Amino acid sequence: MISFENDYLEGAHEKVLEKIVETNYIQEPGYGNDEFTKEAIEKIKQAIDQPNASVYFLGGGTQTNQVVIDAVLKKYEGVIGADTSHINVHEAGAIEFSGHKVITLPSENGKITAAQVKKYINDLYEDSNYTHMVTPGMVYITYPTEYGTLYTKSELEELSNICKAFSIPLYIDGARLGYGLVSAEADLNIKDIAKLADIFYIGGTKIGALCGEAIVFTEDYNPSRFVSIIKQHGALLAKSRLVGVQFSALFSDDLYLNISMHAVEMAMKIKKAFVSKGYQLYIDSPTNQQFFLVNNKKIEELGKKVKFTCWEKYDDNHKIVRFATSWATREKDVDFLIEQI
Amino acid sequence: MISFENDYLEGAHEKVLEKIVETNYIQEPGYGNDEFTKEAIEKIKQAIDQPNASVYFLGGGTQTNQVVIDAVLKKYEGVIGADTSHINVHEAGAIEFSGHKVITLPSENGKITAAQVKKYINDLYEDSNYTHMVTPGMVYITYPTEYGTLYTKSELEELSNICKAFSIPLYIDGARLGYGLVSAEADLNIKDIAKLADIFYIGGTKIGALCGEAIVFTEDYNPSRFVSIIKQHGALLAKSRLVGVQFSALFSDDLYLNISMHAVEMAMKIKKAFVSKGYQLYIDSPTNQQFFLVNNKKIEELGKKVKFTCWEKYDDNHKIVRFATSWATREKDVDFLIEQI
Amino acid sequence: MISFENDYLEGAHEKVLEKIVETNYIQEPGYGNDEFTKEAIEKIKQAIDQPNASVYFLGGGTQTNQVVIDAVLKKYEGVIGADTSHINVHEAGAIEFSGHKVITLPSENGKITAAQVKKYINDLYEDSNYTHMVTPGMVYITYPTEYGTLYTKSELEELSNICKAFSIPLYIDGARLGYGLVSAEADLNIKDIAKLADIFYIGGTKIGALCGEAIVFTEDYNPSRFVSIIKQHGALLAKSRLVGVQFSALFSDDLYLNISMHAVEMAMKIKKAFVSKGYQLYIDSPTNQQFFLVNNKKIEELGKKVKFTCWEKYDDNHKIVRFATSWATREKDVDFLIEQI
Amino acid sequence: MISFENDYLEGAHEKVLEKIVETNYIQEPGYGNDEFTKEAIEKIKQAIDQPNASVYFLGGGTQTNQVVIDAVLKKYEGVIGADTSHINVHEAGAIEFSGHKVITLPSENGKITAAQVKKYINDLYEDSNYTHMVTPGMVYITYPTEYGTLYTKSELEELSNICKAFSIPLYIDGARLGYGLVSAEADLNIKDIAKLADIFYIGGTKIGALCGEAIVFTEDYNPSRFVSIIKQHGALLAKSRLVGVQFSALFSDDLYLNISMHAVEMAMKIKKAFVSKGYQLYIDSPTNQQFFLVNNKKIEELGKKVKFTCWEKYDDNHKIVRFATSWATREKDVDFLIEQI
Repeated sequence: MISFENDYLEGAHEKVLEKIVETNYIQEPGYGNDEFTKEAIEKIKQAIDQPNASVYFLGGGTQTNQVVIDAVLKKYEGVIGADTSHINVHEAGAIEFSGHKVITLPSENGKITAAQVKKYINDLYEDSNYTHMVTPGMVYITYPTEYGTLYTKSELEELSNICKAFSIPLYIDGARLGYGLVSAEADLNIKDIAKLADIFYIGGTKIGALCGEAIVFTEDYNPSRFVSIIKQHGALLAKSRLVGVQFSALFSDDLYLNISMHAVEMAMKIKKAFVSKGYQLYIDSPTNQQFFLVNNKKIEELGKKVKFTCWEKYDDNHKIVRFATSWATREKDVDFLIEQI
Repeated sequence: MISFENDYLEGAHEKVLEKIVETNYIQEPGYGNDEFTKEAIEKIKQAIDQPNASVYFLGGGTQTNQVVIDAVLKKYEGVIGADTSHINVHEAGAIEFSGHKVITLPSENGKITAAQVKKYINDLYEDSNYTHMVTPGMVYITYPTEYGTLYTKSELEELSNICKAFSIPLYIDGARLGYGLVSAEADLNIKDIAKLADIFYIGGTKIGALCGEAIVFTEDYNPSRFVSIIKQHGALLAKSRLVGVQFSALFSDDLYLNISMHAVEMAMKIKKAFVSKGYQLYIDSPTNQQFFLVNNKKIEELGKKVKFTCWEKYDDNHKIVRFATSWATREKDVDFLIEQI
Repeated sequence: MISFENDYLEGAHEKVLEKIVETNYIQEPGYGNDEFTKEAIEKIKQAIDQPNASVYFLGGGTQTNQVVIDAVLKKYEGVIGADTSHINVHEAGAIEFSGHKVITLPSENGKITAAQVKKYINDLYEDSNYTHMVTPGMVYITYPTEYGTLYTKSELEELSNICKAFSIPLYIDGARLGYGLVSAEADLNIKDIAKLADIFYIGGTKIGALCGEAIVFTEDYNPSRFVSIIKQHGALLAKSRLVGVQFSALFSDDLYLNISMHAVEMAMKIKKAFVSKGYQLYIDSPTNQQFFLVNNKKIEELGKKVKFTCWEKYDDNHKIVRFATSWATREKDVDFLIEQI
Repeated sequence: MISFENDYLEGAHEKVLEKIVETNYIQEPGYGNDEFTKEAIEKIKQAIDQPNASVYFLGGGTQTNQVVIDAVLKKYEGVIGADTSHINVHEAGAIEFSGHKVITLPSENGKITAAQVKKYINDLYEDSNYTHMVTPGMVYITYPTEYGTLYTKSELEELSNICKAFSIPLYIDGARLGYGLVSAEADLNIKDIAKLADIFYIGGTKIGALCGEAIVFTEDYNPSRFVSIIKQHGALLAKSRLVGVQFSALFSDDLYLNISMHAVEMAMKIKKAFVSKGYQLYIDSPTNQQFFLVNNKKIEELGKKVKFTCWEKYDDNHKIVRFATSWATREKDVDFLIEQI
């Protein structure tokens, strides 16, 4: 049955696969010292226009968050994030496993604001007991958020400024970065992200790769001994070429953005169809994830034709339902879905 | 330049790659729930003849060791291993990162004995201060060892018995399992491994796969909530299909053992050539890693023709040098090497 | 200047001190094996009427919470607590340091309800992603709470029942246990606490001791190798007699409850005086901590005469102010305070 | 029965107790902000002649080691120590619990040498795989050692120099510092310790206090946010006055050294008697712990008269036996012991 359950249903984009196959028998050193990894690093540095950035490749998103956050925080520090954020809800305690608290702020549509961060930190340091409290050492946000929403450039600038004011880094989890950047609502590009974030990662697993994410440390945050830290977390791939090759392909000829665009076009087509048929949006997402209120009877019916995710209960008669598209979504499958609704 | 530096120089075996490509567009759920993973699990259970075992797939070896050891040990327990073992020397403290001590025993040719384990644990419990000492909760060995050597079946039986006597599991790190099983000196097969070990892993990264290891928990050690533990360690792949597909290919038509056999044949050819030319073995390894004493002048010369690893200094004139073969080693490259020595 | 800032301003009750002095030169083994510790354990078991409980003594409250929670939780589990709870706010991340998430529920007057716990856990297991979420492995509450409030017996029974229903322990932090038990509003005694909690601790530091807390594991939760766990956390006192002696004194002739009673009487006198002079209660606390709204001008004036704690800003003109009494509070100091308000 | 089992058999020295009693009702803030703690800090700074040092007080030795080592090491670093060192053998894995490996060097009489440290670190950085190995971030030694032996000033200078050369701190565990400093064999004083160590602790638990150790960070190692780190480890005492008062007493009128001297005199008397009666020294210790070879028959006999520790089996007929003295050892008990041997 056709599935819109998530954005990691298929393998890799064919150009990514081709490059894996094509380079398969070239002998290369391991652990990040291969030519493909170097090639991919150069392409990413060029794309973000930051020749002094440091770029590393890991296997998956939760791993990336754990390694980056643990590497950057001092031992007594925690990371500020939305209560709905992936690190707080869906990483099985991976951040706490590495010894750090996730300090949560209430979110709206998956987003937090600079004003919230400012108030939280100011209040903390006004408390005479602040040494007994977890010190905020980083702000973590997702772009797009877990609900498909986007921060505006101006919102990101405010977050960036408040982080600079408190001398803590802003870290952007870009598991779905491409799907955000190509959205009609996005008012910034990857160079802006690289300017506003101190650290961010470019998601591959959900955008064209079999596995892999690219971590970017901007100039001021170049870590020392990061390879040892990756290894200590069990996250260093022997055949690091596997991720290097894939990102090299994704960052050739704008492939990353082009295939992201396809996913968002498919998502917009779905949104338009649902709205035109009278379904209510739960959140007005401009990216590849779409959330609708659907009544239970329709859910049951539709579930016999296509797969999707029941996100949560809305009321006794309705659930919030998520449809996700990806680089691999076929237009004919979208058309089939639209016929069923 | 042709390289014999290690056994992860190339990508994947062509049959593995083919299966990745062939299944690429099939939609499958993530996180280990895909059909390919299920298929691979069944094939492995059949190969080891243990229908009630639990099988899981992770991305790499250090990660596998960290996750398994942390999942199985109680919080106050440590793991007994050889002083030369991978977890003690080459994992950047990944075991300690998860809170556990590596309790080291002196090794010979990379191996430890049941008698050593027995003496260590008996001495510990005779010490009136034993509650102030780390409790041994597991014995970790590698098969083949880091030096390419093999435990005999009888040595493994003794280790297995002593572990049973102390009610702690025996865990075998099989990063190079295939290269051990096919060795002329191996007096056991994978079913024996599965009987003697309580937990073991079957290495894919070094034997035909792009990445991935298969963890086998035998019946008595089936863990609860292991997926949550994998996730908490940042080790759960969204597209777990990637490893599932590869192991499904490796465990079809004896591919895993056949390609292992090729590697060992190439290694034996190299050993024979070195020995016949008067080089001294540092260790008489029956598997895919070969260690020789080579004088510094020859090392310099040879280094201009092929790549290999200088393992450590032996004396002022000699170094211990390692040549590794793999499933991908070409016989013509071996012949070229032999001509140079 | 006389201080009402907290309940750990003085040393120890004189009977406690006397016993320390009196036993000083008796030679005793360390690490919990001394006669005084055994004596104290027996007295506590008798007081709670649980001959099969296990009792241990540690130096302080945060340490006790960290050790108990880490000892009891499985590695992938977290602890449910109020958003205002000590473990969430004022332990500098000690729980996360040991690898566990504090799962917060919104609180009212420092309390959480059985209904909240039930809903949280039921919702969790209805979520198809629950294996990616932290598993709740314990419920943590404080009695009295951080705001001086008390759970009723019936509220505790409901919490106890819901914990039993989900097979997770209820742990009560009794840093100020005595001040709760003797309150006119308390409808239960220490035997009830021992029946309703699976694990709890009896606070000494804030009630008559120089240092020390008594952990009680009720029969079903007797831990194995708990001394090793205490040691591993750096929390095992060599001269454990120090805490044993003190608890032996505190649990002789009802000293613990009698001195708690004095503190609560002094607190009630303060409350009555404030209320009669028209101050508004922030929370109507029946125990040794009293919270009032005081205007900024009065705070400044009063601050010249006595010490107290400005808890937090209430509005532009008022702050929430805390006055704490203890076993050591002198009535003449309370009278002096009342004259100033 | 009179005991020589260890050096923490009694409570506190009478002058220490007196000061606890005398200051009992003075109201003081908690968590290290009391006047007694400030007083003790000043006295220690004066004793070591380092006005810019930072001094902190914790409850016990293992806790101190865990907190200091974790606070100072970077996350990927380990601590170098003797294989026989307390942190490696008798702390139940407290260092590993905080994520760090204890890197062991073989010891002689409990000591390691600068040459060993130099070779270890040089070899490490010559290994091309060093990023996969734990980075040494500190050298830990004990003074006196676990076997009562002492480093000479020149040995400490060499260790200090090699640490400086590698830019890692030298940390001295002084659980029994006083017993070393007053030894006839000691060729240095506490000011020398403070010059040669980057960090050290002055043991109180074993020398006159009920509990407590004083951590000294010399100028270059003044930590930031150390109170938060102490709290995070569960090691911050609410009534920190308890340790402050005791160290204030111990560092008045040379009490610390005077009572240490008594212990060592008693130990020398015991040694002299054993040697003159033909017993063999296991180690020639110049401090308060004495180790002899005693035959099993004599052990049985003697064990009926006094308590002591059987350290380990020496051969089928002999055991290594330890007699410890302390500030509290009575000369008449020593005389009684001597009569029995």
